[in-house]
Amino acid sequence: MTHFKVLFHVDEMKKWPLVITNTRNLISELNHSLLDVEILANSVAIKYLMTNDHDDEKIEKLMELSKTVRFCACGNSLESLKIDSKDLFNFVVVVPSGVAELTIKQHEGYAYIKP
Amino acid sequence: MTHFKVLFHVDEMKKWPLVITNTRNLISELNHSLLDVEILANSVAIKYLMTNDHDDEKIEKLMELSKTVRFCACGNSLESLKIDSKDLFNFVVVVPSGVAELTIKQHEGYAYIKP
Amino acid sequence: MTHFKVLFHVDEMKKWPLVITNTRNLISELNHSLLDVEILANSVAIKYLMTNDHDDEKIEKLMELSKTVRFCACGNSLESLKIDSKDLFNFVVVVPSGVAELTIKQHEGYAYIKP
Repeated sequence: MTHFKVLFHVDEMKKWPLVITNTRNLISELNHSLLDVEILANSVAIKYLMTNDHDDEKIEKLMELSKTVRFCACGNSLESLKIDSKDLFNFVVVVPSGVAELTIKQHEGYAYIKP
Repeated sequence: MTHFKVLFHVDEMKKWPLVITNTRNLISELNHSLLDVEILANSVAIKYLMTNDHDDEKIEKLMELSKTVRFCACGNSLESLKIDSKDLFNFVVVVPSGVAELTIKQHEGYAYIKP
Repeated sequence: MTHFKVLFHVDEMKKWPLVITNTRNLISELNHSLLDVEILANSVAIKYLMTNDHDDEKIEKLMELSKTVRFCACGNSLESLKIDSKDLFNFVVVVPSGVAELTIKQHEGYAYIKP
């Protein structure tokens, strides 16, 4: 069984709906394979992962996806935007540097997709 | 002889002219190598590959490129935008999922370029 | 010691500040590793590397980064925008084709990041 590893990179708020759709389609298509999917948010895109938004449909989609996808947020961006990691959804993993994460994961064989 | 495999990803209409120029430059520069080039369009960018546009210069460029480049369109995007695959240029290959295609091709050693 | 190779791709002027920040964060995070970083500019983004801009803060940041990062500009874009390579900062390396460079470097194991 082929093992696919995929890394979505998002650094703009407006790209999130496309990232979510892309991720759902990917999982649906490759569900017969071993599949590791990570969404790495940096720059202003990390704001989408804050709990202060009360869009129920969005939250439900994120919660559902978080069961199969790893959400990561860039620690440098949190610091630069003065966002406390406690204000992110609790399924979000904070990594020290988003671009270092993108580098390390590709080094480990992850495909890179920038919607 | 080195074998280069390259995957261009386009998901915005406004990026097409740059994608076309990029692809032509790539082929011109690496024509001494074995070269496989694929352009994968998903989301709204698939509309650029519909035959209902009568911009002759654009069509000529696409036709010329299609001799050496594989054009793929995302089946999920076709469905979501209610576009019939029959309305695409006949050189376009419809793949079930654009992001799955991006994943599989990178797994096969394709370089990824997002203009 | 792990050897990380990273390629930043920039083809829009407005993305440069993010590219610079990303690159600085990457170097800061992975400074314990062997690290090769290249920033490849093509299309209109090459204008950011012209010496006719007198923004001292920008120039200082670029000069500092150029000690550890390789800046490359696409020769095809220079020609198409009628820019003389002599008008670029002297630390910039002109490559014949930006997209060929992106292809070759990924073939050599560079991770690709498009901010």
